Amino acid sequence: MAEIETFDNPHPNRDYVITHVAPEFTSVCPKTGQPDFGAIEIEYVADKRCAELKSLKLYLQSYRNVGVFYEDVINRILDDLVAALSPRRLTVTGRFTPRGGMHSIIRASYEGSRPQ
Amino acid sequence: MAEIETFDNPHPNRDYVITHVAPEFTSVCPKTGQPDFGAIEIEYVADKRCAELKSLKLYLQSYRNVGVFYEDVINRILDDLVAALSPRRLTVTGRFTPRGGMHSIIRASYEGSRPQ
Amino acid sequence: MAEIETFDNPHPNRDYVITHVAPEFTSVCPKTGQPDFGAIEIEYVADKRCAELKSLKLYLQSYRNVGVFYEDVINRILDDLVAALSPRRLTVTGRFTPRGGMHSIIRASYEGSRPQ
Amino acid sequence: MAEIETFDNPHPNRDYVITHVAPEFTSVCPKTGQPDFGAIEIEYVADKRCAELKSLKLYLQSYRNVGVFYEDVINRILDDLVAALSPRRLTVTGRFTPRGGMHSIIRASYEGSRPQ
Amino acid sequence: MAEIETFDNPHPNRDYVITHVAPEFTSVCPKTGQPDFGAIEIEYVADKRCAELKSLKLYLQSYRNVGVFYEDVINRILDDLVAALSPRRLTVTGRFTPRGGMHSIIRASYEGSRPQ
Amino acid sequence: MAEIETFDNPHPNRDYVITHVAPEFTSVCPKTGQPDFGAIEIEYVADKRCAELKSLKLYLQSYRNVGVFYEDVINRILDDLVAALSPRRLTVTGRFTPRGGMHSIIRASYEGSRPQ
Amino acid sequence: MAEIETFDNPHPNRDYVITHVAPEFTSVCPKTGQPDFGAIEIEYVADKRCAELKSLKLYLQSYRNVGVFYEDVINRILDDLVAALSPRRLTVTGRFTPRGGMHSIIRASYEGSRPQ
Amino acid sequence: MAEIETFDNPHPNRDYVITHVAPEFTSVCPKTGQPDFGAIEIEYVADKRCAELKSLKLYLQSYRNVGVFYEDVINRILDDLVAALSPRRLTVTGRFTPRGGMHSIIRASYEGSRPQ
Amino acid sequence: MAEIETFDNPHPNRDYVITHVAPEFTSVCPKTGQPDFGAIEIEYVADKRCAELKSLKLYLQSYRNVGVFYEDVINRILDDLVAALSPRRLTVTGRFTPRGGMHSIIRASYEGSRPQ
Amino acid sequence: MAEIETFDNPHPNRDYVITHVAPEFTSVCPKTGQPDFGAIEIEYVADKRCAELKSLKLYLQSYRNVGVFYEDVINRILDDLVAALSPRRLTVTGRFTPRGGMHSIIRASYEGSRPQ
Repeated sequence: MAEIETFDNPHPNRDYVITHVAPEFTSVCPKTGQPDFGAIEIEYVADKRCAELKSLKLYLQSYRNVGVFYEDVINRILDDLVAALSPRRLTVTGRFTPRGGMHSIIRASYEGSRPQ
Repeated sequence: MAEIETFDNPHPNRDYVITHVAPEFTSVCPKTGQPDFGAIEIEYVADKRCAELKSLKLYLQSYRNVGVFYEDVINRILDDLVAALSPRRLTVTGRFTPRGGMHSIIRASYEGSRPQ
Repeated sequence: MAEIETFDNPHPNRDYVITHVAPEFTSVCPKTGQPDFGAIEIEYVADKRCAELKSLKLYLQSYRNVGVFYEDVINRILDDLVAALSPRRLTVTGRFTPRGGMHSIIRASYEGSRPQ
Repeated sequence: MAEIETFDNPHPNRDYVITHVAPEFTSVCPKTGQPDFGAIEIEYVADKRCAELKSLKLYLQSYRNVGVFYEDVINRILDDLVAALSPRRLTVTGRFTPRGGMHSIIRASYEGSRPQ
Repeated sequence: MAEIETFDNPHPNRDYVITHVAPEFTSVCPKTGQPDFGAIEIEYVADKRCAELKSLKLYLQSYRNVGVFYEDVINRILDDLVAALSPRRLTVTGRFTPRGGMHSIIRASYEGSRPQ
Repeated sequence: MAEIETFDNPHPNRDYVITHVAPEFTSVCPKTGQPDFGAIEIEYVADKRCAELKSLKLYLQSYRNVGVFYEDVINRILDDLVAALSPRRLTVTGRFTPRGGMHSIIRASYEGSRPQ
Repeated sequence: MAEIETFDNPHPNRDYVITHVAPEFTSVCPKTGQPDFGAIEIEYVADKRCAELKSLKLYLQSYRNVGVFYEDVINRILDDLVAALSPRRLTVTGRFTPRGGMHSIIRASYEGSRPQ
Repeated sequence: MAEIETFDNPHPNRDYVITHVAPEFTSVCPKTGQPDFGAIEIEYVADKRCAELKSLKLYLQSYRNVGVFYEDVINRILDDLVAALSPRRLTVTGRFTPRGGMHSIIRASYEGSRPQ
Repeated sequence: MAEIETFDNPHPNRDYVITHVAPEFTSVCPKTGQPDFGAIEIEYVADKRCAELKSLKLYLQSYRNVGVFYEDVINRILDDLVAALSPRRLTVTGRFTPRGGMHSIIRASYEGSRPQ
Repeated sequence: MAEIETFDNPHPNRDYVITHVAPEFTSVCPKTGQPDFGAIEIEYVADKRCAELKSLKLYLQSYRNVGVFYEDVINRILDDLVAALSPRRLTVTGRFTPRGGMHSIIRASYEGSRPQ
């Protein structure tokens, strides 16, 4: 996976919410080899570091030819973002397009230890 | 009914939410013999096992020629999913199309014992 | 008013939510004699009995030529449903179409004694 | 049926288009005795007379307890409006709500002789 | 297939347009055996006979367990309606739900000989 | 301002919610003399008296040529309704159309003493 | 009525289409004295002069307390704009909010002599 | 590119319209190496052969890692479909997602010689 | 930055919510020099002073040619509004348009000391 | 203004339609000095040259601090694109956001000489 770069949180003394929505996510189904498509939403409260947008885009693009299940990819994105940002809290949501007449939404969250 | 197959939850240490929406559900009204149509939404937190998508589709399709009331079918789907998955929690919602100028929504939930 | 028929709740051991939406409700304004139009939404948790759909439709249709104020009709529907169903809880909402450039929404609820 | 009143076209030298949309139309199915619901749209170019709005509303309301098929009622409204207005041209469209999982749209037009 | 019943066109002297939309159509893919879902829209100008709504619903329902391709079923519905109604003109449109991330629309028309 | 008339609450023993939405509100900006436009939403739980709809419409219309700021008019409507109705609780929301590329929403509430 | 000011068409050698939409139009019903509300859309091809926006706004505002029927006001706006602009062609459309459960759309056009 | 398979047009005596919409198209920008995303719509009148859906999906998927401009890819898809189907007429439309705050739509058509 | 002017809160004895939405915000990306676009929503409970609308518009416009990151600008607007208004509480939300196929939402809040 | 760069039309033997939509256009009102906002849509049939997307974006951005009327800017963009591309035909549409409660749409077209 491409590396998620970060920059200094310009207002670390305040809990505020940052949301990035990437509607052009695509990976590959490990069972059928067919491409999967979905929108990834990342919502977090930064601690010391914020996610740099261009590297975040490249990180998500690096799943393009990777075979991975829905349930797995959302948790892996969550783990990678938590490792890169050490956020106060972070949620990743994937909304995938229909397969077999059925569409799926997966949501996973991380809750850091609160400094208060 | 077709069997609901499962696979190992790839991230069992985390409570995360999985949602599947099947807008092409159809069964038969046991009173009139007429087909019913609706969307079934399944939202759950897996424990050890996740629902395999293709078998879940076939399970829902197996109601196609079954006569069953709205209130009954949602609870039966809930019971079958709980039996197959032993989830931490699970909700089934059915949104049915209008009959006699009136449409219906049925929602039933299961709350497992929390391991914490 | 037409009688609301009922049938045995097929899953009485579980609290689950049943919603019926009837967007074709019409009655008569007792002040002007003009017809009123609206959508009636009924949401309830059944105890021993569920509302039978066809009789519920006929019950709502029986207001067609009755003169009744918005605030009154919603409470009367609530009272009749509570009497027929003895539900665990029940809410009736009426969303009426504009009159004099203004539209109205009326919502009334019943909370039964919880068996827990 | 209630009478459609008219008033003098204030600009008879110009062909311009008048549209009235009545989304609260209701009549009765002659076969089942059940109420039907729909929206009636009337579009016309007036010649000497325009339709007065309040009488038009009362005319449409007078179908409330009349048993009449979709195909028939739209043509009858067209005939009555043509008789009352002698318009240059006039179209009536009915968009009816679903019955048996199917909804219907009926459109009929009158083309008068053009004075040019 | 169930028979399409008809009734006398109540206004045969006028060309007017009748549209019926059935959003609950389902048949079976002859290749995969999986159910297909779609909305069928029928638009026609009647000559001597109109389609009776209940029989039309039952006719469309009779495809429920029939294996048939999209391109074929729309043309067969067109042929059957033309045979039953001898309409002045008639169009059938099928809008099918996504399969393999792709959805399809099929439209076929019949143009009778005009009596003018 | 026109007087807000009231009528007896037909179901005073029950807390139920009445909402009226008037999307055609207009007043005048006291600074520029230009007209302002917005939608006023009134939501309340009646105690002994309900607001009569026609007088409520005339009351809101009486602001038509009055110069008043957004923040002021919502609080004045709230005060007048509380004085007329002595409600158990009441909220007024104004959603105003854009001025200078910016639109505004103002919401004020009254909470009466609860009889329980 | 306020005067409609104009400015030189910056590109008179080309037929191009200018549309202004004013969704905050209000006048008074001459029969009931009640305010009417609607959106006015003006679409034209300028010849030598274009409508200045601020004066157009003030012109439309000057109907605020004028009693005038829908059919009349649209034709009067058309006449005033044609007089002020001598356009190549111009259409005025008014979309009025519901009265008595029915809403109206009025459209009138002017076609100048084409210079080609 | 993957091959587009075909099957016999089941109703070759009639001109009817087949539309397939694939909202999950992705290719690569040849200038930046970044992925492009869009929806491809194919509308055609078949002559002797129809496009088989699964092979059409695989054909569109085979652009996944190909570097190609918007204007080029739509014309290439058009050429390949015309070669495979020899249709009576065919249009390809691509609706691409925003890049640099701007989105693009490309449409190309083929008109065969009509047999009439 | 332009100064945010204020006026006396006309109803300081009541906690009520004021929301202003400015969908035409634009600034410049400090990294690429490209313009950014978004909607700014300001929601607050005034204490002694309210924000004057025209100065608020000019204040937001003064970012037009300023290079600033999303995360920074929302916090700076929050700081400036808190300094100008000393509100009881205030939230600023920025919804920015897509860049690189991804859009962002930033939300920051201030909670003053409550006088109760 | 920035220069509009071009590239060779990859399929010059076919008339096909290219549309670019830029919803983030902003310029300055020459009368008030206030910023204007709108969406610019460019639709054309290329002859020998196509517009390069990045340069087109920069060209439109170069109006950011230019004072220009709606009617003028659309015609100037049309002139510049015709000069750069010598297209077979080209239309520019601007949809501007509300000012004084009124929004505007301006559309201008160029029709080249057809080579056929």
